[in-house]
Amino acid sequence: MFISFEGIDGSGKSTQAHLLAEALRGRGHDVVLTREPGGSPGAEEIRRLVLEGDPERWSAQTEILLFTAARRDHLERVIQPALEAGRIVICDRFADSTRMYQGLSRGDLRAVVDQLQTLMIGREPDLTILIDIDPATGLSRARGRQGHEERFEDFGLGLQEKMRAGFLDLAREYAARFAVIDGARAPERVAQDVLECAAARL
Amino acid sequence: MFISFEGIDGSGKSTQAHLLAEALRGRGHDVVLTREPGGSPGAEEIRRLVLEGDPERWSAQTEILLFTAARRDHLERVIQPALEAGRIVICDRFADSTRMYQGLSRGDLRAVVDQLQTLMIGREPDLTILIDIDPATGLSRARGRQGHEERFEDFGLGLQEKMRAGFLDLAREYAARFAVIDGARAPERVAQDVLECAAARL
Repeated sequence: MFISFEGIDGSGKSTQAHLLAEALRGRGHDVVLTREPGGSPGAEEIRRLVLEGDPERWSAQTEILLFTAARRDHLERVIQPALEAGRIVICDRFADSTRMYQGLSRGDLRAVVDQLQTLMIGREPDLTILIDIDPATGLSRARGRQGHEERFEDFGLGLQEKMRAGFLDLAREYAARFAVIDGARAPERVAQDVLECAAARL
Repeated sequence: MFISFEGIDGSGKSTQAHLLAEALRGRGHDVVLTREPGGSPGAEEIRRLVLEGDPERWSAQTEILLFTAARRDHLERVIQPALEAGRIVICDRFADSTRMYQGLSRGDLRAVVDQLQTLMIGREPDLTILIDIDPATGLSRARGRQGHEERFEDFGLGLQEKMRAGFLDLAREYAARFAVIDGARAPERVAQDVLECAAARL
C-alpha cells in the first residue's frame, strides 16, 4: 500500500506522516517512510540541482522535467521495490504537490505535468491524505517553526489560500484516493483520524 | 537556421561542424556553434550529473528525462534566442542522437523519447547533416585520437555498425531535413559538400 501526505506549509503533514509510520509499525506492519523531492540518492542530487543557486536559473518546464526525473528514480529505487516486498510506503509529498505548485504558477503547465506523470511515472498513491488547515493557522505554525519573528504578510497569506484551494481541487478531482482531514486540532487527534483512515484501506 | 550534425564516433562530425561554422562566418554569417549533451550552463550541470559516477546509477528512463531537461535548457537559453536574433545555430548532436542511442539499447524506449521530444522540446533542426562513415574507419580514427593503442574489438565494431544503421534509418524517417554525406574522404572534400548542402538551404 502506497500512502502520500499533502498539505500547505504548517499543516502538520510531515508530523502526521511520522506518526502514521510509528502507529503502523506498532501494529506490526513493515513501513518505509520517505519524502519528495528526493527520497533516493539520485533524486536527492537532482533535488539539490533544482533548489540550489539562483531561483530563476531553471524555467518552469525544465524544473518539471528535473522533478519528474527525481520522482522516476525515487519510484524505481525506493517505492516500487518496497511495495513489491509487501511493505507499506508512506511518502511526504508526491505528484500532487507538483500538480498543485505548477498548476498554480501557470495553469497551462498542469497538462504538461499530467502528461509526464502518465508517460514516465504511471503510478498514483493508493491513498492520499490531505491535511487541511486554514492558511492563517498554517502560516503562524510555520513561522513559529522557523524560530524567529516574521511580519505576517498578506502576500504569504494570499498564496497559502491559493495553495489550499489547489489541494482541495485535487481532492475533488481524485476523490477515490483522497481523504481530507482537518489539521487544525491537536496532532494526536489528527493522528487518530489518519490512522483510522489508513487502517480502513489496509 | 538551425543545423545539427550527427554521426558515429570517428565520423568527423565535430570537425565538420567547426569547418562549417568557419566557412559560414567567412561568408559574413553570424554563427553560434554549440553541442549536446550540454551547451548551456544548466545543461552542462545536468550532463555532469548523468555522465559522472557509476554508469548504472540512472535507469534508461531517468536518463532520458535528464537529457530532455538538459535539451530544454539548452534550447531556451542558447538555441532559441540565437535563432530569434537571426543567427545560424550549428549544434554537434541533437535529439537524433538520443533517438538513436535509446532506440538501440531498448526499442520500446524510442516511443518515449519521441513523446518527450514532442511534449517538451517541439523543435527539430531545419537541416541535419549525417556524416556517414564505415565503422572500421571510424573506429580506427577514434582510436588514433585517443593517442594510445587499443585492441580492435569485434564488440566495438558490431556496436558501431548498429549505430551507423540506426542513423541511416533516421535519415530515411526524416528524409526532408536529413542530408547524408560520405565522411570517408579528406576533411576538406567533406567540408565542401557540407557547405554546398547548407548554402543550398540558406
